[in-house]
Amino acid sequence: MIYPGLESLIKRALEEDIGYGDITTQSLIPAGQISRGLFIAKSPGVVAGIQVSEAVFRQLDSEITFEVFKNDGEVVLPREVIAVVQGQTRALLTGERTALNFLQRLSGIATKTRRVVELIKDSKAQLVDTRKTTPGLRVLEKYAVSIGGARNHRFGLFDGVMIKDNHIQAVGNIREAVAMARQKVPHTVKIEVEVENLAQLREAVDAGADIIMLDNMGVEEMAEAVSIVEARALLEASGGINESNIVEVARTGIDFISMGALTHSATSLDISLDLVDAD
Amino acid sequence: MIYPGLESLIKRALEEDIGYGDITTQSLIPAGQISRGLFIAKSPGVVAGIQVSEAVFRQLDSEITFEVFKNDGEVVLPREVIAVVQGQTRALLTGERTALNFLQRLSGIATKTRRVVELIKDSKAQLVDTRKTTPGLRVLEKYAVSIGGARNHRFGLFDGVMIKDNHIQAVGNIREAVAMARQKVPHTVKIEVEVENLAQLREAVDAGADIIMLDNMGVEEMAEAVSIVEARALLEASGGINESNIVEVARTGIDFISMGALTHSATSLDISLDLVDAD
Amino acid sequence: MIYPGLESLIKRALEEDIGYGDITTQSLIPAGQISRGLFIAKSPGVVAGIQVSEAVFRQLDSEITFEVFKNDGEVVLPREVIAVVQGQTRALLTGERTALNFLQRLSGIATKTRRVVELIKDSKAQLVDTRKTTPGLRVLEKYAVSIGGARNHRFGLFDGVMIKDNHIQAVGNIREAVAMARQKVPHTVKIEVEVENLAQLREAVDAGADIIMLDNMGVEEMAEAVSIVEARALLEASGGINESNIVEVARTGIDFISMGALTHSATSLDISLDLVDAD
Amino acid sequence: MIYPGLESLIKRALEEDIGYGDITTQSLIPAGQISRGLFIAKSPGVVAGIQVSEAVFRQLDSEITFEVFKNDGEVVLPREVIAVVQGQTRALLTGERTALNFLQRLSGIATKTRRVVELIKDSKAQLVDTRKTTPGLRVLEKYAVSIGGARNHRFGLFDGVMIKDNHIQAVGNIREAVAMARQKVPHTVKIEVEVENLAQLREAVDAGADIIMLDNMGVEEMAEAVSIVEARALLEASGGINESNIVEVARTGIDFISMGALTHSATSLDISLDLVDAD
Amino acid sequence: MIYPGLESLIKRALEEDIGYGDITTQSLIPAGQISRGLFIAKSPGVVAGIQVSEAVFRQLDSEITFEVFKNDGEVVLPREVIAVVQGQTRALLTGERTALNFLQRLSGIATKTRRVVELIKDSKAQLVDTRKTTPGLRVLEKYAVSIGGARNHRFGLFDGVMIKDNHIQAVGNIREAVAMARQKVPHTVKIEVEVENLAQLREAVDAGADIIMLDNMGVEEMAEAVSIVEARALLEASGGINESNIVEVARTGIDFISMGALTHSATSLDISLDLVDAD
Amino acid sequence: MIYPGLESLIKRALEEDIGYGDITTQSLIPAGQISRGLFIAKSPGVVAGIQVSEAVFRQLDSEITFEVFKNDGEVVLPREVIAVVQGQTRALLTGERTALNFLQRLSGIATKTRRVVELIKDSKAQLVDTRKTTPGLRVLEKYAVSIGGARNHRFGLFDGVMIKDNHIQAVGNIREAVAMARQKVPHTVKIEVEVENLAQLREAVDAGADIIMLDNMGVEEMAEAVSIVEARALLEASGGINESNIVEVARTGIDFISMGALTHSATSLDISLDLVDAD
Repeated sequence: MIYPGLESLIKRALEEDIGYGDITTQSLIPAGQISRGLFIAKSPGVVAGIQVSEAVFRQLDSEITFEVFKNDGEVVLPREVIAVVQGQTRALLTGERTALNFLQRLSGIATKTRRVVELIKDSKAQLVDTRKTTPGLRVLEKYAVSIGGARNHRFGLFDGVMIKDNHIQAVGNIREAVAMARQKVPHTVKIEVEVENLAQLREAVDAGADIIMLDNMGVEEMAEAVSIVEARALLEASGGINESNIVEVARTGIDFISMGALTHSATSLDISLDLVDAD
Repeated sequence: MIYPGLESLIKRALEEDIGYGDITTQSLIPAGQISRGLFIAKSPGVVAGIQVSEAVFRQLDSEITFEVFKNDGEVVLPREVIAVVQGQTRALLTGERTALNFLQRLSGIATKTRRVVELIKDSKAQLVDTRKTTPGLRVLEKYAVSIGGARNHRFGLFDGVMIKDNHIQAVGNIREAVAMARQKVPHTVKIEVEVENLAQLREAVDAGADIIMLDNMGVEEMAEAVSIVEARALLEASGGINESNIVEVARTGIDFISMGALTHSATSLDISLDLVDAD
Repeated sequence: MIYPGLESLIKRALEEDIGYGDITTQSLIPAGQISRGLFIAKSPGVVAGIQVSEAVFRQLDSEITFEVFKNDGEVVLPREVIAVVQGQTRALLTGERTALNFLQRLSGIATKTRRVVELIKDSKAQLVDTRKTTPGLRVLEKYAVSIGGARNHRFGLFDGVMIKDNHIQAVGNIREAVAMARQKVPHTVKIEVEVENLAQLREAVDAGADIIMLDNMGVEEMAEAVSIVEARALLEASGGINESNIVEVARTGIDFISMGALTHSATSLDISLDLVDAD
Repeated sequence: MIYPGLESLIKRALEEDIGYGDITTQSLIPAGQISRGLFIAKSPGVVAGIQVSEAVFRQLDSEITFEVFKNDGEVVLPREVIAVVQGQTRALLTGERTALNFLQRLSGIATKTRRVVELIKDSKAQLVDTRKTTPGLRVLEKYAVSIGGARNHRFGLFDGVMIKDNHIQAVGNIREAVAMARQKVPHTVKIEVEVENLAQLREAVDAGADIIMLDNMGVEEMAEAVSIVEARALLEASGGINESNIVEVARTGIDFISMGALTHSATSLDISLDLVDAD
Repeated sequence: MIYPGLESLIKRALEEDIGYGDITTQSLIPAGQISRGLFIAKSPGVVAGIQVSEAVFRQLDSEITFEVFKNDGEVVLPREVIAVVQGQTRALLTGERTALNFLQRLSGIATKTRRVVELIKDSKAQLVDTRKTTPGLRVLEKYAVSIGGARNHRFGLFDGVMIKDNHIQAVGNIREAVAMARQKVPHTVKIEVEVENLAQLREAVDAGADIIMLDNMGVEEMAEAVSIVEARALLEASGGINESNIVEVARTGIDFISMGALTHSATSLDISLDLVDAD
Repeated sequence: MIYPGLESLIKRALEEDIGYGDITTQSLIPAGQISRGLFIAKSPGVVAGIQVSEAVFRQLDSEITFEVFKNDGEVVLPREVIAVVQGQTRALLTGERTALNFLQRLSGIATKTRRVVELIKDSKAQLVDTRKTTPGLRVLEKYAVSIGGARNHRFGLFDGVMIKDNHIQAVGNIREAVAMARQKVPHTVKIEVEVENLAQLREAVDAGADIIMLDNMGVEEMAEAVSIVEARALLEASGGINESNIVEVARTGIDFISMGALTHSATSLDISLDLVDAD
């Protein structure tokens, strides 16, 4: 169980695709026929979501067997078998697309994440995701990011404080905003402040922010920020960071680099499900 | 109303992000404060989903005003304003990410679709989507494809027949499979058969298939298929088609080209929501 | 599994009947007592929905055994046993009415359908259902129609096109309406046009309609329609057709006859559940 | 508001019919066009459910106007206008079938009920319904029965006690069963016992049953039952009662006659929705 | 199964606590580790809801074993073991708080109820609950009351009639109100009237009320009410009754005493779950 | 809007109470009658949840007016009017109990919380709640705690880390456990460790725990803990703390005191809704 809502999410996905029935399969495939399906990679990448695929088929046929050869987090090469599912042919044909839609998207995110993590592995900077996820899939997409080797940022608006420009304006200044948040939110949650320049950065440090996000800063300014802060707060770089410039960013000594593209611009990993007769 | 399930989908997306509350905004922004938010394009593209964004904010504040400057389907350039929302500052800050997550993803799909449609506009071939969509978002993603100028393929397993290799094997041959499906599915639905070579193609035509999908065929084989079929069935090219080779495919005289990448590998369009004080 | 939503439908039906508990049974029947229940036909008819009944009991007691003697589609005579369920006495008494409400209604539809199908079995006309179903039960009621031997028409507004008078008026004429629909809806779906006279019929044929519904036409006009169309489109008779006049309609050479009464005016088949002590 | 769950029931019914969209109407009818729809009776009957129909359209277009000419419970003759709805043409066309499916079924039940009530109006017997309703529609169907002039029996298994043969067997005898139920169920609920002969009847009276159901008794036996009980309990006749024999049953002096056919075998009242241009 | 909605209620409770995951446990406890958890009483009381606790864990780990040493209704002393659960350590740690929240609240209600029942055990008066329950938990809280030895009053507004002052005013007088209700509600349900003085009491008796609630009457007035009514109706005392004065109330000869505090002011029973290594 | 799920929670509460209808009110109160209802305190306390009560009535009658005289957080004395609602008499009578059940429970929690907060107002210690809340009501109950003047602890298992004895055992020691959690959970969340003695406390401080919970420690040991930690971590006292001993605990210099009784053992505040004719 990745999280309690997963079964409902899968149920909605199946209902979206199947509706009142897979009319092709119900017309042509006899009930009771058993097949075996091989999940086969068509491109190299990192697997993520294989248990989700299993859960998709299990909702259609509780008797399936499912053998995994490449677990979440493992690298897979073209033509390698990721997993083998065996069960009712009807269930395999009907669930195929939904199972692949989950697996391909999550593996696509894990693959992209792994590639970016590799780029900065020699720095102390840790890659983190954002809330720029597909509506309805946040838990799974953040799970795929963690499988790819990056860290998760806050899950939503309820489990972390992020004080942005509009919040600061409404309150008057950073010091006041941090103090108000500190007094009102659970003491178990850290306070993060988004800053756009070094003056704001100094204010945020003085205000006692736990984390400071450097929004769209240049690399040199970031390096200066690192030396100003001297570890009194965690520093996070954000905005406009991509695979071309991330190494430079990482070299500034920043603690975290957040990158929305991990989820909003990942493309699917190419995986197929090949059906064969069961032995 | 794009479709009846939209309100529930938005509600789930908001609950996913907000959970038990936007603790930053509730701590710092006074109730009753009004702001204006400008949706601004950061990259060129085609807008799709602007009413979805409106509906997101309306669930948080039923009193908002929402003025659209670039409707779904219109091209937008960097720095152009797509729409302006005015309402409770709390609602704007709390709904911002969810509204953008929908708008950016849908606009990304429409943008990619428009680009591909342009490539083949001089042929008779029509671009269509697939069922390779994000679980839970199929209606919206297919809507974005249509906004981008392509056509929709069947929505799910219930509103079209697609006879694939495994179905044919179970029945014995294509002729039989088409006949069985014809007898069992609603007479309002067309029968599509997926074929891998010209021999199967001839069988499918003879069997009376309404649509024949040429799966992963080379361009020359496709052209031959077109001349064999002589308009007795609709022909659809599928598999391995991308922006590099689609023009060639279109020149074969094929009727439809389906392309999963429209949805499974579109990246978000860059759009921001800038908050300013309401007048 | 007839379709993915069935479990939820049954759950709602049980909650509707049971609410916070079967107070009679909970007060009087000891937990752990086992009984056997015999589904017995009280009138002759065609069984439909026996797995639905099984699923009702299984939600209340996952350990039941359920043996079917008359499967869906089989004819049953008074006093014949359709199925035997064995399980917790409490579950049998509590689920009895819900199980029967499904089974009796679906069997009533299948029985009526079979009777009408028999009437026209010597013609080429095929009997089809309509969207005049009980809200919430469409999949099951259409399933019962198919069990009775008739065909299903489109399931809903999304999986078939039906151009009616109001649509034609809005567009201007049939030709235009068919062309617009053809361009906008998935190419996997056929276009049906409803016509009221032969002039409209000719327009619809010329427009390339795939199916033409003759709405409330007399038998002679229908026969003329058949000879006008000459198989260039499928023809469907609809409106005011009942068991008294359907044979005449079928003789006109029409392809399909749709009949709302199959679902909106079927009456329940009389079936009881007799409880006996388990051996 | 007939009951709190009505909006959800209507939403599910609309989703069942509309799915991902009314593809005909969305393709052909321009957004913004306004029409007027007239609900017109095609057969004589009693109207029931007109507010349900209104609620169906209101979910699709919150701006509709809805004028009722024949309220629930009023008799309607062929060609009479029951109500007029005005709103978005798209909403009217898309909601038409769902609105009619509710209205026709409920009016069919009210019509049948009224006819039966008339038959026994000169007796003191009151007609009541049963739990033999369509799964998911119990509240509405029982509402239609009350509109038709009959009374409602218990709604479900939770709001009334009905001790049947199997309950009696499990406990040992009627006296004990009534006493146990009396001790365990809320004191606000009456105890009803189902009996099959006069010996059981006497036992039930002595046990202090509040209501006694005479199951499948002949008319003479019922009359004897009435004289035995001498108003110490309410008497309800049940089983095998139809429009042919109900007058005789009513004459026995029985208090209530329950009749499952009011709901399980009512047929739809013929009603159409005719669309005209709005003024 | 206590009632059909229980599984959904537990699911919502788990989702409320777990959200997108128990981040502590997922980070630190290896999948596959097995533990044993002992439910241990920390205060004396009456157990209620032990199967609910079991159902909580079963949703997280369908393979758990669960052994009960103190069933619902049994008295438990400090340090006694109520039940032992064995299963995935992750499931035990993640479900612990939700399982205890149910068990402690329900046991708290049963404990308070038992104490009050004991106080009046020598009278004929029966203690009953009210509708003053926690929103969403009514079935469970009323179940706990019954486990504590008291009776349940009506479950909700649908399964019993309670005519209050405002109802009487709207109709004009008690006689009329009782007659109207008698004619309109199911004949399976009793009519209760709330009265504030002996004049109203006499009216209610004459009107044929089945149950009369004496609202906030003094003990002497109640005793007089008992002698006026002479068993022609059931009498229920209500309002301002607590553990200090209930004995006096019971001595008046009243039939029922309803007490909202059983549910709205019960405090949790102190119970812990101690985890130990599985053997 | 307190949080996005509130409307659904209220809907479920209303359905629980109303079911298929308020049979008393529907039988006796004419549709259209308007009344005014006064929420009146019967005991002194702190109001919490008045908007929840408003939302309850608004679901039953969207036209109500609702005037608040004592907002959430204000102290109310017996006989003072908290709010006045005006609308359909039917809606007021039907919604009364549900509205009060929310308001009384939440005000009861706020009242108890305020009383405890007052006790320790002269110390620096802040009172916080726990996860010992009623299943399904956590957001509202924690809201009531904040209205009473205390702080909220983490909402659930997902928005804070709490390393307990079982977690430490599984990992081996506190240092390792903190390091692992630090590496795996979002960097926006603090790490709390539960310790039972001063040795563990020192380990936890050295491990870099952000918060340390002193579980069931005596007051002297707590004071020693405060001097050991010297503000290197936040300190939270927990376990066995009640209104009698909390002042002593607060004097130790502890930062936070968590108290489950705020929610699991609060009793309802006595509030009534008195209906009067609308002017």
